[in-house]
Amino acid sequence: MNVVVQNISRAPQDVIDALGNAGVATVHEAQGRSGCLASCIRPIYRGARIAGSAVTISAPPGDNWMLHVAIEQVVEGDILVLAPTSPCDNGYFGDLLATSAKARGCRGLIIDAGTRDVRDLEEMGFPVWSSAISAQGTVKEALGSVNVPIVCAGQAIQAGDVIVADDDGVCVVRRDTAESVLASARKRLDAEEVKRQRLASGELGLDMYDMRPRLEAEGLKYV
Amino acid sequence: MNVVVQNISRAPQDVIDALGNAGVATVHEAQGRSGCLASCIRPIYRGARIAGSAVTISAPPGDNWMLHVAIEQVVEGDILVLAPTSPCDNGYFGDLLATSAKARGCRGLIIDAGTRDVRDLEEMGFPVWSSAISAQGTVKEALGSVNVPIVCAGQAIQAGDVIVADDDGVCVVRRDTAESVLASARKRLDAEEVKRQRLASGELGLDMYDMRPRLEAEGLKYV
Amino acid sequence: MNVVVQNISRAPQDVIDALGNAGVATVHEAQGRSGCLASCIRPIYRGARIAGSAVTISAPPGDNWMLHVAIEQVVEGDILVLAPTSPCDNGYFGDLLATSAKARGCRGLIIDAGTRDVRDLEEMGFPVWSSAISAQGTVKEALGSVNVPIVCAGQAIQAGDVIVADDDGVCVVRRDTAESVLASARKRLDAEEVKRQRLASGELGLDMYDMRPRLEAEGLKYV
Amino acid sequence: MNVVVQNISRAPQDVIDALGNAGVATVHEAQGRSGCLASCIRPIYRGARIAGSAVTISAPPGDNWMLHVAIEQVVEGDILVLAPTSPCDNGYFGDLLATSAKARGCRGLIIDAGTRDVRDLEEMGFPVWSSAISAQGTVKEALGSVNVPIVCAGQAIQAGDVIVADDDGVCVVRRDTAESVLASARKRLDAEEVKRQRLASGELGLDMYDMRPRLEAEGLKYV
Amino acid sequence: MNVVVQNISRAPQDVIDALGNAGVATVHEAQGRSGCLASCIRPIYRGARIAGSAVTISAPPGDNWMLHVAIEQVVEGDILVLAPTSPCDNGYFGDLLATSAKARGCRGLIIDAGTRDVRDLEEMGFPVWSSAISAQGTVKEALGSVNVPIVCAGQAIQAGDVIVADDDGVCVVRRDTAESVLASARKRLDAEEVKRQRLASGELGLDMYDMRPRLEAEGLKYV
Amino acid sequence: MNVVVQNISRAPQDVIDALGNAGVATVHEAQGRSGCLASCIRPIYRGARIAGSAVTISAPPGDNWMLHVAIEQVVEGDILVLAPTSPCDNGYFGDLLATSAKARGCRGLIIDAGTRDVRDLEEMGFPVWSSAISAQGTVKEALGSVNVPIVCAGQAIQAGDVIVADDDGVCVVRRDTAESVLASARKRLDAEEVKRQRLASGELGLDMYDMRPRLEAEGLKYV
Repeated sequence: MNVVVQNISRAPQDVIDALGNAGVATVHEAQGRSGCLASCIRPIYRGARIAGSAVTISAPPGDNWMLHVAIEQVVEGDILVLAPTSPCDNGYFGDLLATSAKARGCRGLIIDAGTRDVRDLEEMGFPVWSSAISAQGTVKEALGSVNVPIVCAGQAIQAGDVIVADDDGVCVVRRDTAESVLASARKRLDAEEVKRQRLASGELGLDMYDMRPRLEAEGLKYV
Repeated sequence: MNVVVQNISRAPQDVIDALGNAGVATVHEAQGRSGCLASCIRPIYRGARIAGSAVTISAPPGDNWMLHVAIEQVVEGDILVLAPTSPCDNGYFGDLLATSAKARGCRGLIIDAGTRDVRDLEEMGFPVWSSAISAQGTVKEALGSVNVPIVCAGQAIQAGDVIVADDDGVCVVRRDTAESVLASARKRLDAEEVKRQRLASGELGLDMYDMRPRLEAEGLKYV
Repeated sequence: MNVVVQNISRAPQDVIDALGNAGVATVHEAQGRSGCLASCIRPIYRGARIAGSAVTISAPPGDNWMLHVAIEQVVEGDILVLAPTSPCDNGYFGDLLATSAKARGCRGLIIDAGTRDVRDLEEMGFPVWSSAISAQGTVKEALGSVNVPIVCAGQAIQAGDVIVADDDGVCVVRRDTAESVLASARKRLDAEEVKRQRLASGELGLDMYDMRPRLEAEGLKYV
Repeated sequence: MNVVVQNISRAPQDVIDALGNAGVATVHEAQGRSGCLASCIRPIYRGARIAGSAVTISAPPGDNWMLHVAIEQVVEGDILVLAPTSPCDNGYFGDLLATSAKARGCRGLIIDAGTRDVRDLEEMGFPVWSSAISAQGTVKEALGSVNVPIVCAGQAIQAGDVIVADDDGVCVVRRDTAESVLASARKRLDAEEVKRQRLASGELGLDMYDMRPRLEAEGLKYV
Repeated sequence: MNVVVQNISRAPQDVIDALGNAGVATVHEAQGRSGCLASCIRPIYRGARIAGSAVTISAPPGDNWMLHVAIEQVVEGDILVLAPTSPCDNGYFGDLLATSAKARGCRGLIIDAGTRDVRDLEEMGFPVWSSAISAQGTVKEALGSVNVPIVCAGQAIQAGDVIVADDDGVCVVRRDTAESVLASARKRLDAEEVKRQRLASGELGLDMYDMRPRLEAEGLKYV
Repeated sequence: MNVVVQNISRAPQDVIDALGNAGVATVHEAQGRSGCLASCIRPIYRGARIAGSAVTISAPPGDNWMLHVAIEQVVEGDILVLAPTSPCDNGYFGDLLATSAKARGCRGLIIDAGTRDVRDLEEMGFPVWSSAISAQGTVKEALGSVNVPIVCAGQAIQAGDVIVADDDGVCVVRRDTAESVLASARKRLDAEEVKRQRLASGELGLDMYDMRPRLEAEGLKYV
């Protein structure tokens, strides 16, 4: 019942990195406005921007044993993603685990629970997106699973899915759609640059997007 | 039913600016401890301090079409204020809309919903006070209204009311009381400076405000 | 019924300071994973790290009168700890009270309610951990008590207990256990340094803690 | 600043009663899907269904003095509506106040705060819609206002507006639109009865509302 | 992108019904303490107890159009399960939709959003488990999908999975494990009956489960 | 560290029962408006009204082992009171434990976490006040303590304190003040009966309590 899946497939690293550069908002739009984790998941410090392959963790409330197990499964460029099996705000993760994860090439942690040692984590440049900051520690008593499908902050995530995270939050991209999502994201970014310049020059969105006829048709009245 | 009110009255700009300098806490005290929006409305970055006339927006959940409509109504010094018609944490606003709003002279956005592109917004110096940060995008399908009375985060706000916002949150001042509130705020600020010096020198509030007799009368016991 | 207890016992200052240096996460682990206040209590700015003796305040909702009374009871190195008698997010505390408290040698405030003037507080280096930031002011109408036992954010706190606060949150240590908790914390810190180096070199926690046999015994399957 | 407005206008009683019979969901649809108070406002017992003219109360947190003042302003058929000036879950209202209100002909209470004595209130048939049930009592120390405009659970309410409340929640209708809203509500109810019979016989909404062409045009695919 | 999957597999009806008789708590234990939806999902009235095959709905916030589409896909014994694509408490469902669903043999609705007409729903015996009760209506403007995988209240749900719901909440059982879960549930129920009688006679769980040695080994002290 | 305190003092049973008859709201007022647990603690069914001596339980999140230990400590008339060491909504308690507790004479359970089997509990007349209803089960892996001081839903509770619970919530009375609180409660009840009759006859609270002069002195204006 409690398993560690050791071999997982990952998207190509250059695709992952390019999704990271595109950023959460663009990637989520590029895949049809889907994939965002709940807005309660916030970065513990501002300015981090990462992408990587998900190593997923299902853990009991108040028990971080599986984090040690999961770190062994991390390869360079991966991101740990932990969902507790019931709501919990304990601090599952701190500077020792971050030291270990970083030594394996882990780029960060997404956790629908708490983290601690946040000052140390910021100093060592190990970013975490969590639903709480809490010093409340956990035990290492009960098993969970690693690299099984989980639901984290409202999104179903499979091991090897691409995680993109920045100051706007976290988005998941299915591994097998990563390349097509990237293609869409690139088109979007190109188009946005042109729009940005026109809007900056004072042109209205109403005109640039030709919205006035449709607004009138819908019945908007100017008084 | 869905309208855009085009001509709104505003308070004098110098009064507005002076209220902004006084800050949210002082202004709210000066008008009888009223006008504060709910404390869930937080700035997306620290250090911004603005005041301006409200251009109000009532928008459906998950639909930011009216922001484009509202930006045309903005004049130099205005602040956009958006209330969804039912609770929603979607990211209604990002860097493109901010670029457009800024080009019109807009000073910021107050929104009882989500915003995104927060790193870009901070870099371009466009402040937002919101109840969420979320990359989850919105559609442009359904109408709302602009410059109609709204309720935003617990406060009734009319177009042209004065909005003051800083690190402590957001306060609304009725347009026609702006000058009298400013007068009260100034008195308060003058008085505070004297108090601050006395307290800094070690004098107790108990003595400075002559509280001891009243505490005794109320029955406070020292043991 | 409403009392101010004037003479309270405190732990030795060097013990208190050493607990502060150990930090919240370590101190809480050292006393058996207990003492953490709820995770809704967050610092108003990052980077502060304090420890001190609690001067406790029980105050009615929306009434900050007792803060003035409590400040008289503060001696150098103390920390104010306020719990409202029912839930309230009003801004009980601002720059004037901070000026007064600081003049008495107060190191900070822990409050399960709101605070305001957060920019001023950061500039003057007076740290606050609160459950809200709100400009909404309070009155000075009703009595409370000072230095009586309170429950603040889920923890029972007595006057003179040691409060430790940093970016991870707030922890309380019973006054009479402060020295033994410190001894445990020191052992923990020493042990952690060695672990950190081993983990940084790439050794896995699974091996360092010899977890593999126990994981196998519990039934974890690698697939 | 603290006032009691003694003469308020009310909608015709037969219009009010007919709106009550139509119910909250229908009335809110009939006025363009607006007017619903936040869904945290729930009835303390099931089965009550009332309508009446709002006697509004603005009260400080933890202080129910103004309820006594407001009850004098009640006439037969009115509903008390209380909004605290900042969030509070105290029990402002219990069986004694209900006895007094009922003796004046009051039909119920809407309160964005707590109530208590809920068993007694159910036994005496005095319905309350509140955001909390709490025995925590309040004081009678500070003034508020009666029959001034308030914001209660997200809706701006004026004295004399029509309140409709049932198991689905609470809706406010502006006094001067009560008759036109009632006319719309009646049309809606008539239309619904026919629809109900068709749906009960097995006809699909897809066909009854002729939705298939529009779904196809929007791009819905059946697979 | 927006699809309706028309042919879904279902578990055998007798297995489904037997899982419903076992109840949510037993079924969730029988599958290894998994499958429970978040505790915010509550029945709108007490006493209903159902099981059925999930017809899943992914719908935009504030838009219930897909409910009409989904009802056509219902066969006798199914349960509708709706997850909005972002958090929303609007009343998506009321008595007309319930009439239509019931005519198709639908046993109930699970929705991580609001419902309304709750008195009518109770009278007609159509049970709903929802995260809110709200009269706030929705529009029929934007597409979603039917019978695609969704995440509802923290659980990943596929069309055809077995839903069990009663006063304790809601649990999902993967379609292909339904029979083995039922077998486990039955063993559990048999064992519980014996335990209940022993406990009712005054025997302690400490003795019946032979817990004393393990408690002592773990270090529990009786003082 | 983990202990079971076996001998606790209790208040006289007739005093406890009389406090139960007085009810939560009255008892809480009689002891100076203190002792109420947070309003999130609600009865799982309406109409229960109990009082008893607290057998306290401190338990880890997601672990109900200590409930078995605690039940052995129950004597006729006691009430179990459980606080998890960090926030948890799991269902710690169900019909088997209730059967066992009831066989020992236990009158009910107060728990700042979840409970399940609520229909069974209602049928067997075993009342529970909880912060959640959840089928999510717990483990029996880690120790806690019994009859130690706890903080439950914001109130510090000692073993042997008197718990009063009814439809308004839960209140705790310190064991050594139980008799004096009862005396005050009785005076209050006597006085209330007279007031109720006067108010029912139409006399206003404004007159009965002679509030008009004080309202005028405070500055209330009738307009």
